[in-house]
Amino acid sequence: MNNPGALLGKDSSLFVDLYELTMAQSYLENGMSANATFSLFVRSSKVTRSYLVFAGLAEIIDYILAYSFHQETIEYLKSTNLFNNKFLAYLENFRFTGTIRSMREGAIFFYDEPIMEVEAPIIEAQILETLILNLIHHQTLIATKAARCISAANKKSLSDFSLRRSHGIDAGMKSARSSFLVGFDTTSNVLAGKTYGIPLSGTMAHSYVSSFQNEIDAFRTYAQDNPTNTVLLIDTYHVATGAKIATIVGKEMESRGQKLKAVRIDSGDLASLSSIVRYILDDADLQYVQIIASGGLDEYQISDLVDKECPIDVFGIGTRLGISEDMPSLDMVYKLVNYNNRDIKKSSEGKEYLSGKKQVFRVLDENGNMSQDIIGSHNELAPRNSTPLLEERVDEGNIVAALPDLETIRGYFIHEFSTLDAKYKLLEKASKYPVSVSNELKLLQNTRP
Amino acid sequence: MNNPGALLGKDSSLFVDLYELTMAQSYLENGMSANATFSLFVRSSKVTRSYLVFAGLAEIIDYILAYSFHQETIEYLKSTNLFNNKFLAYLENFRFTGTIRSMREGAIFFYDEPIMEVEAPIIEAQILETLILNLIHHQTLIATKAARCISAANKKSLSDFSLRRSHGIDAGMKSARSSFLVGFDTTSNVLAGKTYGIPLSGTMAHSYVSSFQNEIDAFRTYAQDNPTNTVLLIDTYHVATGAKIATIVGKEMESRGQKLKAVRIDSGDLASLSSIVRYILDDADLQYVQIIASGGLDEYQISDLVDKECPIDVFGIGTRLGISEDMPSLDMVYKLVNYNNRDIKKSSEGKEYLSGKKQVFRVLDENGNMSQDIIGSHNELAPRNSTPLLEERVDEGNIVAALPDLETIRGYFIHEFSTLDAKYKLLEKASKYPVSVSNELKLLQNTRP
Repeated sequence: MNNPGALLGKDSSLFVDLYELTMAQSYLENGMSANATFSLFVRSSKVTRSYLVFAGLAEIIDYILAYSFHQETIEYLKSTNLFNNKFLAYLENFRFTGTIRSMREGAIFFYDEPIMEVEAPIIEAQILETLILNLIHHQTLIATKAARCISAANKKSLSDFSLRRSHGIDAGMKSARSSFLVGFDTTSNVLAGKTYGIPLSGTMAHSYVSSFQNEIDAFRTYAQDNPTNTVLLIDTYHVATGAKIATIVGKEMESRGQKLKAVRIDSGDLASLSSIVRYILDDADLQYVQIIASGGLDEYQISDLVDKECPIDVFGIGTRLGISEDMPSLDMVYKLVNYNNRDIKKSSEGKEYLSGKKQVFRVLDENGNMSQDIIGSHNELAPRNSTPLLEERVDEGNIVAALPDLETIRGYFIHEFSTLDAKYKLLEKASKYPVSVSNELKLLQNTRP
Repeated sequence: MNNPGALLGKDSSLFVDLYELTMAQSYLENGMSANATFSLFVRSSKVTRSYLVFAGLAEIIDYILAYSFHQETIEYLKSTNLFNNKFLAYLENFRFTGTIRSMREGAIFFYDEPIMEVEAPIIEAQILETLILNLIHHQTLIATKAARCISAANKKSLSDFSLRRSHGIDAGMKSARSSFLVGFDTTSNVLAGKTYGIPLSGTMAHSYVSSFQNEIDAFRTYAQDNPTNTVLLIDTYHVATGAKIATIVGKEMESRGQKLKAVRIDSGDLASLSSIVRYILDDADLQYVQIIASGGLDEYQISDLVDKECPIDVFGIGTRLGISEDMPSLDMVYKLVNYNNRDIKKSSEGKEYLSGKKQVFRVLDENGNMSQDIIGSHNELAPRNSTPLLEERVDEGNIVAALPDLETIRGYFIHEFSTLDAKYKLLEKASKYPVSVSNELKLLQNTRP
């Protein structure tokens, strides 16, 4: 598998809402084997982000290509008494034979734009709904939150500290991957380091300091035992005192030819404390010692600290990143837009969406910067100076080209993000990036009910 | 394993923040092998729940008992150049040898009360921090949110529909388990059905209805193919029309000796729509057909619908349950309270906590109802009419008694919850349940700095 972070084994195929399977049985029973196209997008009904970052593609492609029903799985389904033998026999031979078109992982996108379209016999495309939504929704959510932190930090370094309060094991892993994808430098999550090749960070907790009788004993001991990676946590008792003790230990390290790497402040008024600590460090000629700040941070607080020009070198972002606190879900949906060459458009009140197979065209200005997107029909000609964003990833059930590795995805996002004007990146009251619907796609909405 | 939902393999031991390992190395280097006690609790700094529900015990005990470092894991740690050979050799033989005392899974608890205490050589107790917080925080968060939905629903049936927008794979699984634990009846998550033995629910999506040329064709076909589990989704086009078509199909089912199970409304004003639909069903003599409501529901909306006496029989709760939307994290922490028989109390400003090993005593009134809790010292005598809630689960690294199965935990929670007065269960402005600190524990805070 491309993506060794995958956590499910032979029962992957049961990671599905029951109705996907009961509908599938009915499609089979009625010989409904025509191709369907489902479109994955984020509804604009709940807009509190000005842009979004597509993440999770590598993982979902792995799952889809491996999607199959093992015997034990079939036995369980049989035991529910909801499925007939014909359908169970069909599942035994299930494999995905369709086409997947999507944006590149790491792409910047906007509301109502399809980020992925799955075209396959309706049973196949339907059954994948839950898995696709679960994996892409979560990773897109976190990558987007993390990108906002990157903007706010204005080139300061960021580290993912979210593992302990992410929503379970998979979420902890994906927070590390999704935040690294958009430019975080390190993670505290050791398994993510091993799994995704992300550099690690972190050194001591309050418990370490408390387990010693005195703070200086704790600092000295730690510096001796971890000379190449000494970050001293200085807020267990009193930050300024902690900083002074850290300078003593830093000087002792210098005398041994070592360097104190950083001090960390995890509580209190980070703006004033970081200034005091910087003063204490500089006063001791320890200009090279960095200051790491952590403790309930998110993009809003980072932005505030950066605006105040606080001497913080690294921000450690935990809980609020891992849960995307101010917006813990996106209204991401996977909608049937075409069945058997018939465009599907009607839907429940307030939940309308664009029918038909689509393409998203990104128009660049003369400097190569993002200027507008046009949601078009699948086969229409690309407008001038535009690039179609949906590309074929899987064709007749086979991968078209190897997916890029995480470093490459990261590079792609960082470049793309640099071409998005700052006015779209404001945390609040950002400008609305122009997204329009092509005339051809509009026509299709009106003429085929 | 007790808990077949566990998702990690041989690298479980790396699901850890880096600093747990760098601290551990330093403890080893300094011969710090004395026992430490860490206490797991939810800080009261961010109170927006009046009670909490302890979940995740079965899983964490499984992980802790199996916690070990495989050769490949050791090789990775070696490659980071952060660890010396002595420490790596220590990890090769690592296994947990300590004691775990905790509340029962499914226990109701309050802020600042320890729900688990881990006592072991400091390295062992420290290394487990990240895993314990991650697993118990998430499951407790969701069980608590689900319990609020149970209260709000006032004996109406509830189903977990959260899989698609939970934060990844593990979160999807644990939403099903944690909500069933407190009294949800079913889940849409098929893998959770297989893994935890939870009854399944769900039948059709809008895509199914849209894939047919007419709504009645869709309903008829589905009823024929799934006669024992027919729930018709009636809001794809127009709810009242959908309901009328459902009555036609319901009558056709009757003529075949079958019964339409329910109709589902997934959008619009559920209060008025459910009344209209009930009228249409009753008017067609289909009193037995249930109404299921879904679509962005949570405890606040359920409560509102119940207050209005809407004729809804089952609530399907999705995204807002799975992410605990109004409170997607708890300030759960794992703090060193004793090391080498020295009680630890000092901590950063605004982050103080009770030092020393503890017990929580629950005092019942004459009717067996919960009347108050007392946080006491570990070894003090239980106050009159009180029960100590922290019991030994693991002793010297061995499980003391098999943990109860999910049905038993569910029964325990449901009973305990019935003994908590309604005034503590209000969704907003609930009364504060009385929790006090015993004199003995208070004395200990004052006398040992």
